[in-house]
Amino acid sequence: MTWLEDGTVTSPDGFLAGAVYSGIKIAGPDKKDLGVLISETPCTVAGAFTTNRLAAAPVVVSRQRIKAERLVRGIVFNSGNANAATGEEGLRAAHRMTEVTARRFGGTAEEYLVASTGVIGVPLPVDKVEAGMQRIILRASAGHEIAQCIMTTDTRPKEAAVEVAGPDVSFRVGAIAKGAGMIHPNMATMFCFIATDAAVERAFLDAALHRAVDVSFNMISVDGDMSTNDTVIVLANGRAGTPTIVAGTVEADAFEDALTQLCVRMAKAIAADGEGATRLIEVVVDGAASPDDARRAARAIASSNLVKTAVYGADPNWGRVACAAGYSGAELDESKLDITIGGIPTLRNGQVLRFDKGTASAVLKRSEVRIEVNLNTGVHRATAWGCDLTEGYVRVNSSYTT
Amino acid sequence: MTWLEDGTVTSPDGFLAGAVYSGIKIAGPDKKDLGVLISETPCTVAGAFTTNRLAAAPVVVSRQRIKAERLVRGIVFNSGNANAATGEEGLRAAHRMTEVTARRFGGTAEEYLVASTGVIGVPLPVDKVEAGMQRIILRASAGHEIAQCIMTTDTRPKEAAVEVAGPDVSFRVGAIAKGAGMIHPNMATMFCFIATDAAVERAFLDAALHRAVDVSFNMISVDGDMSTNDTVIVLANGRAGTPTIVAGTVEADAFEDALTQLCVRMAKAIAADGEGATRLIEVVVDGAASPDDARRAARAIASSNLVKTAVYGADPNWGRVACAAGYSGAELDESKLDITIGGIPTLRNGQVLRFDKGTASAVLKRSEVRIEVNLNTGVHRATAWGCDLTEGYVRVNSSYTT
Repeated sequence: MTWLEDGTVTSPDGFLAGAVYSGIKIAGPDKKDLGVLISETPCTVAGAFTTNRLAAAPVVVSRQRIKAERLVRGIVFNSGNANAATGEEGLRAAHRMTEVTARRFGGTAEEYLVASTGVIGVPLPVDKVEAGMQRIILRASAGHEIAQCIMTTDTRPKEAAVEVAGPDVSFRVGAIAKGAGMIHPNMATMFCFIATDAAVERAFLDAALHRAVDVSFNMISVDGDMSTNDTVIVLANGRAGTPTIVAGTVEADAFEDALTQLCVRMAKAIAADGEGATRLIEVVVDGAASPDDARRAARAIASSNLVKTAVYGADPNWGRVACAAGYSGAELDESKLDITIGGIPTLRNGQVLRFDKGTASAVLKRSEVRIEVNLNTGVHRATAWGCDLTEGYVRVNSSYTT
Repeated sequence: MTWLEDGTVTSPDGFLAGAVYSGIKIAGPDKKDLGVLISETPCTVAGAFTTNRLAAAPVVVSRQRIKAERLVRGIVFNSGNANAATGEEGLRAAHRMTEVTARRFGGTAEEYLVASTGVIGVPLPVDKVEAGMQRIILRASAGHEIAQCIMTTDTRPKEAAVEVAGPDVSFRVGAIAKGAGMIHPNMATMFCFIATDAAVERAFLDAALHRAVDVSFNMISVDGDMSTNDTVIVLANGRAGTPTIVAGTVEADAFEDALTQLCVRMAKAIAADGEGATRLIEVVVDGAASPDDARRAARAIASSNLVKTAVYGADPNWGRVACAAGYSGAELDESKLDITIGGIPTLRNGQVLRFDKGTASAVLKRSEVRIEVNLNTGVHRATAWGCDLTEGYVRVNSSYTT
């Protein structure tokens, strides 16, 4: 597997994209807010969505269409308006978005999925979508453009692609993502659109995506809030000419590995670019009594406001790490607990170690901080990612418009 | 029931208190850090403690002693050091604190409870406790003094007392509390010491305390972190000369009502004085399908970083309120949801209402903001309290010492 230089969601063969400023975002015409990702040939599809009971209209629509197990042509999406908590009118607007996409780019409305991000509870201006759609031009190189288009409070686009070269045939997998606020286990206002030119059997694609999401997007936290709009979609158009990949084969392993690594990379990029964040926090919990214990402890630590502010303050506060592990619900024995912060052992068998605070503080000022916890009660391991909590987070979120 | 002017934990008859600066806190001699609350006569006692699996040494010791169901003389406590994650040595230190208290003020070590708050993972300097204890002078009026002594990042002491006047005999209930950081459902680094001169049967005292804690301290959130040291203790010395209060009587109702109101008042004071907070947020969820649904939704809203920053920004962002209710796990139907912010209806049956943003913003600038949510799916109700999230929270917690 090779990471492609300048890789993005249109790096796999047969995927086109385009975006315009339609007027949904208040920010102004230099910010694109309406885009499409379209395959030249029909795709097998899988998706993972928010578990919030107030799922936004586009989530409801996309979920239904994926459940129907038909082939899909592409995704239409907008930023600046989440089309969430918008009732029946919102559902009509989400359907309408796919209708105008079909009218412009072919096929039927049912062959398109839809995703929206932005402000909650404001009616989506469908007329702007209709007008904007007429101006979208599809290009094979426009992955970067749509990576920009889906950004809300993100400070940088998130995109990558890999190539898996087999003996006979090779395929690519590419992705774009957006995140920033409302990022929490079980996902949040985050999108990840993944495209591959491999041919993949639907049931395996679905299973592989859910496993990949479980160790990536479901293991990141920015602020503990879980959005109404979270959407991860993978489209497989088979253009690479591979035989259809099915579970239990070498190709399936290679594909799932590529998909997972891509999801982890996107998830880390989202965590690192959390609202106001200055540092990525990686939490590795090892020696847990069960896989669930490992996940719970890792997520509790990565989500703790006190851990996050300590990292921001470059404070090697292992006490807050221990405390978060303590309330995570994971099985725990104080006298067995090891904690290492930024490579510096701070606690061993529950005993405080002497360490140089200055060195530790310097390590915590790096852009990536690794916190390692060994519960020493079992053999299970999990990794979670978060970011520091700064005055910047408060500023962004206390002034974000309703 | 009457609130006593200048009421505190020593307002009930027969309770004495005293505090000194012993050198545990780095802050310096103007900050007291070691204190005792002692009854002139033995007390029936009940307690509620953190559910964190890394319970601090003083929690372990106090919990054991309350479980033993013997009479208690009082509580010794310190601020500046939590004696948490301190292993065997920590347990010895906690026992030692009660030994030196008994030596100075009479009785046996087992007749004292112990509580510590402050930094985690640093050995408690027992020699300072021993030396400091010799200088403590007991006074009946020293409730205010110990309310100050238990403060860490609190900006003001929290204390109150009520008098319940019966036809024959009246009794008092008084309390002091501390909170600020790490405050979350199921309690956090918070103390509440409650004293009453009523005579109360042990089993009823225990049941009444747990019910009171459930609607007060377990319904507040400052930052979602749950401490290793949370302690609520009630001491009943019977000095008012009441017959022993037992469950199912008019007196029991009057006592439980007083206890509950006192706990709610202390809980609200803790939430309002959350680290960096400028506003108290009261969240009332009504029309829930079950009591648990009501509690979950109220707590999720009061705990949401996005709701908290919106209140700080005086932004009537009902969308974030709806979103938090959505991920709380409570049964929810978007088309039935009503949301009122600061008395201004913003959502009715899932439909966005027109409201004046300027007026709403002005209401949100008051020191108390009430958010009312009606799920309209049942008849259950719960109230939770939180505070806004500000740059001040980040400042306090990114510079707090390890």
